[in-house]
Amino acid sequence: MGKEKLESLINVSVTPARDERFREVIAKRQQITVILENVHDPHNIGAVIRSCDAIGISEVFILYTEESHNFLKQKVGKNTSSGARKWVKAHYFGEIETCFDAVRSKYNKIYGTHLSDQSRSLYELDLTEPAALMFGNEQNGISDRALSLLDGNFIIPQYGMVQSLNISVACAVSLFEASRQRAAKEMYSVGFDQHNPAHTEMYNGFVQKHFEYIHKKEK
Amino acid sequence: MGKEKLESLINVSVTPARDERFREVIAKRQQITVILENVHDPHNIGAVIRSCDAIGISEVFILYTEESHNFLKQKVGKNTSSGARKWVKAHYFGEIETCFDAVRSKYNKIYGTHLSDQSRSLYELDLTEPAALMFGNEQNGISDRALSLLDGNFIIPQYGMVQSLNISVACAVSLFEASRQRAAKEMYSVGFDQHNPAHTEMYNGFVQKHFEYIHKKEK
Repeated sequence: MGKEKLESLINVSVTPARDERFREVIAKRQQITVILENVHDPHNIGAVIRSCDAIGISEVFILYTEESHNFLKQKVGKNTSSGARKWVKAHYFGEIETCFDAVRSKYNKIYGTHLSDQSRSLYELDLTEPAALMFGNEQNGISDRALSLLDGNFIIPQYGMVQSLNISVACAVSLFEASRQRAAKEMYSVGFDQHNPAHTEMYNGFVQKHFEYIHKKEK
Repeated sequence: MGKEKLESLINVSVTPARDERFREVIAKRQQITVILENVHDPHNIGAVIRSCDAIGISEVFILYTEESHNFLKQKVGKNTSSGARKWVKAHYFGEIETCFDAVRSKYNKIYGTHLSDQSRSLYELDLTEPAALMFGNEQNGISDRALSLLDGNFIIPQYGMVQSLNISVACAVSLFEASRQRAAKEMYSVGFDQHNPAHTEMYNGFVQKHFEYIHKKEK
């Protein structure tokens, strides 16, 4: 879409209140992300995206190394993300290496939820640095290939009879811990900066999504 | 069930490994609980119970003030709690006052998730004291009557475009924050004490559930 067309759309569709809300939310977006590897259930993906939006994550990386999973692309989070899907960009990858390269270009560390000798507790991770948290397939967890490329594994300490959490719950607990750490360091106290290319890029993306949505409703 | 019969069941069904596991889990059970008020979706209740078990909660209070909800009793957490339902006792109530009396006999404070002028952040609550966390109906939240009886309201700080979390996610985030606080105070480092009536009562309950389950499988 050309700049001129985009600007004309802004004038048509974004009220001052909406504009203000966009800037407020964008200013609080954090340098933290999620990678999902071969996660089957669209409800899980939707719930993950909702948690992402809630703590200020602007993009997620969705990795399908199994051909058969690609069909999910159309369905992702349509119902269970309650609209959060519009405000969190999903990047799709079919190869681990390409996905990790893209993630590493913006985030310093990639941690995966996996139990091993070297696993650390979630609460020992420094989640105030730019980091990606990876969650694996519902049955098999993170693949060996991905494990070999991670910067570390972590677990959520549990004390019950049943030793597993649903992926959307595990992800929410991890992300809100990151959010707690970041709030304690006042990382949500930044204002919108129109000279910050990341902010303006997100703003343009929000406006476009907003317009697409209105356009779809009008049809 | 008589004591003698129970003991004979123990000999039949509990292996030393299972016995050890029961004692280990029971020793880590915490004085914290959850109240659910008119929560409709059995999947939500199941997920809540799974989180409860995971952080060491031994009982939950399920309150249905609307007649029509009682049918849920049979279905609660059958599928989505992944067996956690066996290890977390559910108490059912039809009246708020009776429910709160039962809760207050064991827990010092009752906090509800609700946004108001007086709401505190989840992370400001001291969840190392014996406390109950209350979550309301999916659409309407906590009832006015219940709100008037609470010791305080709290919110989970959120920074996104969408300002609501699924109840199972909100509950998990709250409970794991309690768990983080309690682990930091080494409240999970207690051993099983056969002279502690709470421990032996839970142990007997676990054995009975274990036996009921085996019996059901054999049928």
